[in-house]
Amino acid sequence: MVLQGWTGPKKVDGEFIEGSFRSHQVPLTRAKTDPKHLEQLKEWLTSYKPEELFKKDGSPIDNILSIIPENDEKKLGQLKETYDPYVGVKVPDWKKYGVEKGSEISAMMVCGKLLDKTLQENPNTVRIFSPDELASNKLDAVFDHTGRNFQWDQFSRASGGRVTEVLSEHNCQGWMQGYTLTGRVGLFPSYESFLGIVHTMMVQYAKFSKMAQEVKWRKPIGSLNYIETSTWTRQEHNGFSHQNPSFIGAVLNLKPTAARVYLPPDANCFLSTLAHCLRSKDYVNLMVGSKAPSPVYLSVDEAEAHCRAGASVWKFASTDDGLNPDVVVVGIGAEITFEVIKAAELLLELEPNLRVRVVNVTDLMVLGTEGTHPHALTHDDFDALFTHDRPIHFNYHGYAAELKGLLFGRPQVERITVESYREEGSTTTPFDMMLLNKVSRYDVAEAALKGAAKSNEKVKLELGMKLSEIRHRVQKIKQYILENGKGMCKL
Amino acid sequence: MVLQGWTGPKKVDGEFIEGSFRSHQVPLTRAKTDPKHLEQLKEWLTSYKPEELFKKDGSPIDNILSIIPENDEKKLGQLKETYDPYVGVKVPDWKKYGVEKGSEISAMMVCGKLLDKTLQENPNTVRIFSPDELASNKLDAVFDHTGRNFQWDQFSRASGGRVTEVLSEHNCQGWMQGYTLTGRVGLFPSYESFLGIVHTMMVQYAKFSKMAQEVKWRKPIGSLNYIETSTWTRQEHNGFSHQNPSFIGAVLNLKPTAARVYLPPDANCFLSTLAHCLRSKDYVNLMVGSKAPSPVYLSVDEAEAHCRAGASVWKFASTDDGLNPDVVVVGIGAEITFEVIKAAELLLELEPNLRVRVVNVTDLMVLGTEGTHPHALTHDDFDALFTHDRPIHFNYHGYAAELKGLLFGRPQVERITVESYREEGSTTTPFDMMLLNKVSRYDVAEAALKGAAKSNEKVKLELGMKLSEIRHRVQKIKQYILENGKGMCKL
Repeated sequence: MVLQGWTGPKKVDGEFIEGSFRSHQVPLTRAKTDPKHLEQLKEWLTSYKPEELFKKDGSPIDNILSIIPENDEKKLGQLKETYDPYVGVKVPDWKKYGVEKGSEISAMMVCGKLLDKTLQENPNTVRIFSPDELASNKLDAVFDHTGRNFQWDQFSRASGGRVTEVLSEHNCQGWMQGYTLTGRVGLFPSYESFLGIVHTMMVQYAKFSKMAQEVKWRKPIGSLNYIETSTWTRQEHNGFSHQNPSFIGAVLNLKPTAARVYLPPDANCFLSTLAHCLRSKDYVNLMVGSKAPSPVYLSVDEAEAHCRAGASVWKFASTDDGLNPDVVVVGIGAEITFEVIKAAELLLELEPNLRVRVVNVTDLMVLGTEGTHPHALTHDDFDALFTHDRPIHFNYHGYAAELKGLLFGRPQVERITVESYREEGSTTTPFDMMLLNKVSRYDVAEAALKGAAKSNEKVKLELGMKLSEIRHRVQKIKQYILENGKGMCKL
Repeated sequence: MVLQGWTGPKKVDGEFIEGSFRSHQVPLTRAKTDPKHLEQLKEWLTSYKPEELFKKDGSPIDNILSIIPENDEKKLGQLKETYDPYVGVKVPDWKKYGVEKGSEISAMMVCGKLLDKTLQENPNTVRIFSPDELASNKLDAVFDHTGRNFQWDQFSRASGGRVTEVLSEHNCQGWMQGYTLTGRVGLFPSYESFLGIVHTMMVQYAKFSKMAQEVKWRKPIGSLNYIETSTWTRQEHNGFSHQNPSFIGAVLNLKPTAARVYLPPDANCFLSTLAHCLRSKDYVNLMVGSKAPSPVYLSVDEAEAHCRAGASVWKFASTDDGLNPDVVVVGIGAEITFEVIKAAELLLELEPNLRVRVVNVTDLMVLGTEGTHPHALTHDDFDALFTHDRPIHFNYHGYAAELKGLLFGRPQVERITVESYREEGSTTTPFDMMLLNKVSRYDVAEAALKGAAKSNEKVKLELGMKLSEIRHRVQKIKQYILENGKGMCKL
C-alpha cells in the first residue's frame, strides 16, 4: 500500500511518521498482512472523517457537488482557453529581411530585425525569454521597438517590454512553458553552453506535450523555440568552460514527432528557419547558429529551397557542380561549414585531380534512417545526395557520437568518417579552436584525401606527399598563433 | 577592449554604465579608435589610483608584497592539501558481501551492506550525498552504523551522520565536488531520471578535472561516483515522468580519460563495480542498476572475471555454451538482460534449430572502436565476442542513438539491430513497460529470428509462422495486463 505525503499515522513500530521524512515513504508497509498495521491504516484514514464528505453510496455530499458550476462556460475544463488556447503569431515575410548573397553579416543581427518586426506586429502574443544579454547574442535589434520588462523599477515596468531577461535558465524555461501553454509563442535564445542547464525541464515538458497530443480533446499549441548562439566554435575568449553542445543530443532523444534540430549555415537560412519555427506547433525546435559576421552563401530563394530540402549539394563549392565526385565532404553548422568550403578550395590547389562534392545539412533530422523521423531522407534520396559508394566526411558541430547514431542505419557506413567537437578548448584564436577539435579545413582536406585514396589510384600515389604538405602548413600556422596570439594567418 | 564587471565609467555616449547592466557588457567599445573613448578609459582606470599600488617599474609596492608569507609552508599553493589532497578510502573486500548464484536479491540492498562497512572503516573520508530517500533506493543498510547528517536539529546534528540528504541534485553535486576536491571520496546515488538535472555541473567539473590532469603539479584525486537506480524499467508506479536515462549520454561525451559507464547485471557484479569505482581516481563513474529483487547470474568469482573483461559470453544462457551461433543477443542493463535470457529460453522452445549466443555487457566503454577509449575492445576481441559475421541484436538500457554511436566504427554494422528505451511509459505493469519500449523477451526473440533468417534457410522457411506465434502470445499478455492491471503472466 503506497500512501505518500506529509501526513500519516503518528507512530508506526515505534518510529514517528507524521511530520517526519518517513511520511514521504511507505508509512505502513505490512497493511496487507499485519492486522495491527491494517488497524492503524483504518484509524489514520478514518481521522479524515470520510462520513462527513461522502454519502452512503460513496458519492460526494451535495455541499461538495454544489461547487461545480451548472453553466458549462464556467467549468475550467470546458473553456477554449484550456483545451485550445492557441492564438499564435503572424510571422512577417522573412524574405524582406534577407541579405545579399556574397556579403558577410551576423545571422543573429539579421534575425534580430525579423524579430523586431514580429514583436511589433504581434504586440500580445510573442515574448523573448533570455538568460544572457540579448545584446551579447547580437539580437538587440528587437530593442528598437520594445524594452526589457524590468520588474524592480516602476518606470521601466511601465513600458511593458516584451523581452524578459534574467540570468536563470530555469526561470526562462518555466516562463516559456507557461506562456506557450496559454497559447502564445516564446523564443529562448541562449549561449549554447548553458541551455543544457534546462535539459531535464525540456524533456519533462516534451513528455507532457506527447501525452497531450495523444488525447483527442487537446488541440495543438506553439512549439518550444530555442536559439543557441555564441557557440563553442567562437568561445576563444571565454574558453573551455563556455563549450557544451549537449542540448542537441537532448532534443535528438525526444520522440520524432517533436524533435527538430536545425543548424542554418548563414543569415538567410537562419531567417527562413526562424520564421518556420515561430509558426510551427507542438515541436521542440532547436536552432544553432553564429552571431559573428559570416559569409552569406545562398540568396533568399536559394536559402528557402535549401531549408525545405534540409540538405543539398552546394554546387558553387564543388568540382563540376558536384557531378561524379571522388569524395563527399559535408558541413553541419555555420563555422564548420565554412571550413569545409575552405577545404574544397585547398584540395583544388593541392590535388586538382580530386573531384569533390560539398554538401550542407541544415536540418539534422534528414540524416536518420528512412522511416525513423518525418524528415528522414529515403534511402534513394540519401544516395542521390551523398552518392551510393563514395567516401563521405562529415564535419559536424555537435558531438560525433550523436551524428553516428543518426547515420547508423544508412548503407555502407564504413565509408563515413566524422569529426566534431571533442571537448578541446582554451582561450586561444578562433582558428586554433578548429585545429584543436580537428574540424579545420586542413583536417577536412586530410580526411577527404585519405577517403578518396581508397578508390582513386592517382590520389593514392601521392597521398603521403599531400598529407605532409598539409601537416607542414598546420605546423606553421600553429607556430604563428603561438607567437602572435592572433587569428588565422593567410599561409 | 573587453572589461567586464559591475563598475565602469559613470556614463558613456549618454548611457549609464556604472551600476547598470551595461557594466557587464563592453563599456567602451571604441577605445581603440575614438580618442574620447580612450580618454574616458584612462579616467576610469586612473580612478583606481594605480600610482598608490605600483612602483615606477610596474611591480607592486612593498606593502602589498609583504602579504606573501616568507615561509613556503604558509603559502596556500605550496600545501600538500592543495595540490595533492588525496587521502582516499580503504574499500573492504567486496567478495565477503557476495551473494549466492541462483538467488534473487536487490543489488542495492547488497551494496548497502558493503557501503555500511566502508563507512565504518573510513569514518572520515567517505560521504554519501543523496537527493532521494536512500531508503527508497534500498541502500538503507548504511544506516546500521551511521545516520543522516541533519543540520536543523541539534540532537541529530550531534550524531554526525555520513549521509547528507537534501532534495536538491544541484546541492548534492556541489557537496560531492567540494568533498572530492579536498581528497575524500563521495558517492551520489539517485533516481535515474533526476541525475540529468546536474548534467552541465558534472560536465563543468569534468572540464576542470581534464585541465587539472594536464598540469604536472596537480596529483590525482578521487572520482565522481554516481549510482543510478529506480530506473525507467521499474517506474511502472511513477510512470513516464520518472523515466530519463540521459545521464549515460552525458558521461559518454566526456573525454575518454574520464568517461566510465557501467550497467552491472546483478548484485555480485554491482559489488565488484562499486568497489572498483570507490578506489578509482580522476574518473566520472556512472553505475546503473536495479533496486528490485533480481536474479544473481554469476558467482562472486565469475562476477569478478566478467567485470574485468567488461563483457562476456554467458554460456549458461546460450546454445552449446555459445559455440558457433546463428545469432548473438546482447543484454546491457539488469532488467534488459533478464529479458534477453528469457528470450533465449523462448527461442529454444520455438525454434530448436536456432543456435543462440547470449552476451552481457557490463562496461559500456568496451564497445567503442579500438583505440577510442582505454577499455575499447580490439577488433579481434570484438569479433571473438560477437562473431565476425553473425547478426547481433542489442537490447540496451539507454537511448539507442548513443549505443549506435559507440558501435559505429565496428565492422559490418549492417548486421546489428538495437532496441532500447524509446520514451514510452505510463503507470502500468513492469512487463508492459518492456513491451511498450520493444525490449521484452518477445521483441528480442523476434529480432533474433529475423536476423538469423537472413543466413539460416531453416529458420527462414518458418519465419512467418514463428513470428505469428510470438505476436499472438504478446496479444494475449497485453489483454491480460489490461484486464487485470498486474504483472507478467505465465503465458
